[in-house]
Amino acid sequence: MTNRIFNFSAGPAVLPGDVLREAQQNLLALPGVGMSILEISHRSKPFEDILAGCEADLRALAGIPDGYKVLFLQGGASLQFSMVPMNILTSAGSADYVVTGAWSQKAVKEAKRVGGVKIAASTEAENFTRVPRQDELTLDPGAAYVHYTTNNTIFGTEFHYRPETGSVPLVADTSSDMFSGPIDVSKYALIYAGAQKNLAPAGLTLVIIREDMLARTPKSLPTMLQYPVHVENGSMYNTPPVFAIYVMRLVLAWLLRQGGLAAIEKVNQRKADTLYAEIDRTEFYKGHAAADSRSRMNVTFRLPSEELEKKFAKEATAAGLDGLKGHRSVGGIRASIYNAFPAEGVDALVQFMREFEKKNG
Amino acid sequence: MTNRIFNFSAGPAVLPGDVLREAQQNLLALPGVGMSILEISHRSKPFEDILAGCEADLRALAGIPDGYKVLFLQGGASLQFSMVPMNILTSAGSADYVVTGAWSQKAVKEAKRVGGVKIAASTEAENFTRVPRQDELTLDPGAAYVHYTTNNTIFGTEFHYRPETGSVPLVADTSSDMFSGPIDVSKYALIYAGAQKNLAPAGLTLVIIREDMLARTPKSLPTMLQYPVHVENGSMYNTPPVFAIYVMRLVLAWLLRQGGLAAIEKVNQRKADTLYAEIDRTEFYKGHAAADSRSRMNVTFRLPSEELEKKFAKEATAAGLDGLKGHRSVGGIRASIYNAFPAEGVDALVQFMREFEKKNG
Repeated sequence: MTNRIFNFSAGPAVLPGDVLREAQQNLLALPGVGMSILEISHRSKPFEDILAGCEADLRALAGIPDGYKVLFLQGGASLQFSMVPMNILTSAGSADYVVTGAWSQKAVKEAKRVGGVKIAASTEAENFTRVPRQDELTLDPGAAYVHYTTNNTIFGTEFHYRPETGSVPLVADTSSDMFSGPIDVSKYALIYAGAQKNLAPAGLTLVIIREDMLARTPKSLPTMLQYPVHVENGSMYNTPPVFAIYVMRLVLAWLLRQGGLAAIEKVNQRKADTLYAEIDRTEFYKGHAAADSRSRMNVTFRLPSEELEKKFAKEATAAGLDGLKGHRSVGGIRASIYNAFPAEGVDALVQFMREFEKKNG
Repeated sequence: MTNRIFNFSAGPAVLPGDVLREAQQNLLALPGVGMSILEISHRSKPFEDILAGCEADLRALAGIPDGYKVLFLQGGASLQFSMVPMNILTSAGSADYVVTGAWSQKAVKEAKRVGGVKIAASTEAENFTRVPRQDELTLDPGAAYVHYTTNNTIFGTEFHYRPETGSVPLVADTSSDMFSGPIDVSKYALIYAGAQKNLAPAGLTLVIIREDMLARTPKSLPTMLQYPVHVENGSMYNTPPVFAIYVMRLVLAWLLRQGGLAAIEKVNQRKADTLYAEIDRTEFYKGHAAADSRSRMNVTFRLPSEELEKKFAKEATAAGLDGLKGHRSVGGIRASIYNAFPAEGVDALVQFMREFEKKNG
């Protein structure tokens, strides 16, 4: 693919080249359909097949058990921050939230509009350099659910264990590491993910919900915010984001061709190990995340000065390594290396880091 | 464009060939950017330029006055059915709703969850074959707003006048005829449209809101449902549907190249006149809509029997005229001929109708 650069953006993010090429090839007319995917009715047979195929591939990849519903929604994780408590907390209850960054804080804010919220743990005092250990979680056995964020895009931390919550339903925002490795769906009551990092272009939200959760929804909610309505209508209560679902289908097919989630996890681990090894090799680069909480998706690090960080980002962009500027709440550099990010891009960054250190160290 | 057929779908619907070709050409990498529009960060300069250009073109095309905000949201008209009353009705107030079909009925249902609703008029008893006249509207001078649906996709009716509501704010769902002709935005307090008919692929919702309406929003609403939040964040409170906004930009540029809204209205009028003339030519075809309420976007008609209607739709599909089956609540045939639907497609349908009548009349 000529004229393409390495895209380290935190999301929307890089998609597999194969996916882009197939989408491009069929953009004027889907084979045998005679219309673009941008034009076909969501009630048409070709789209019904795409939606059904998408769900089948999701179920195959993640081993989603019977008794779980898969939904294709809009509004991103930001709308899920409200939909989750509106549907399964309700005003009489209380939920436990594990706070590990800006996104979990936003989730807490929206949950508080609905009902009671207890903070099971927070690493804010440490500027979110790590996620809490299981023994640090204060869990309420009567909680409506426990909510946590599996990967923290901004801070570059990730849970390397799944919180044990006993009989309390576990809810996870997996927006930034969904399908970066195997996930045991049976341990969760509800999983949601904005799709624009590992799964699809922006504009699509994936929700996987255990059926018993559907009984909690108050019928007074706006129809569009009721999970059971979307379940009953097979994600077609209103017009779904057709194109984003089509691209997700292509991404899932690509994941299957890579060998599935266990195989992609190995690739992701290798990419992350390569980058963290470079950070650990020298005092010039300093990782933001504590070693036991390092994210395999978003690698955050600092340089000796903000001036050098600016120079680094600027020269990297000029060298075809784009999107490396860190989020303002952490500063420094952030390299997002999702599923579709090529290993050669990581190698190119490591090479760039060495040369930059030689010139400026 | 080889292998393309005529797409009479009610939405998602046909897009201009020029738009599809440009989107296809740049799908691997935007010129000068090196990344696909499906991959770029919504915080990047290239996307900021697309979003700003989109708003500028919208303002130029429709002459949107200062004092109006333009929002690019998700969730379609279905989510607007709730967002409108949640933001500008509130529980103490009452709003007037004009009921002209299934979509206005859904809007009423959601508004009732929030506050008082009075039905200003309904043509349900006549199976929505027409929209009410101004003198049939019972308007409450103390209403929070008056809501109506400018075009009724399912029934094939359209308002050919704008309801006069005095000092009461006017709210319009223009999902299916937005930008099919000039619109005097200054007469409205709020206009919303799911974009998937005349403006863009599915997954994008356009909202145009007069600034004084923003003061009504209760701060207790979920953040994602507050219009002022989206205004303050320039439609970037969360990740917007990047690709759909990009395609809308291409569609707006195409509209400007056609000569703008007055020019496209003439084209639309000619297409609709051609089709209605064929319906009126013979007793074999019978239009669903009353003459004074005929939609220029969705032309609905019946044949002498349901058997013939099935045969018509089937043979039309085989002849490359797709998506003509009517909605189940009306039956018969529906030909949706939005802005991008080519005049040759209307001619081809008229030709097909004549031949079908000859063989089956």
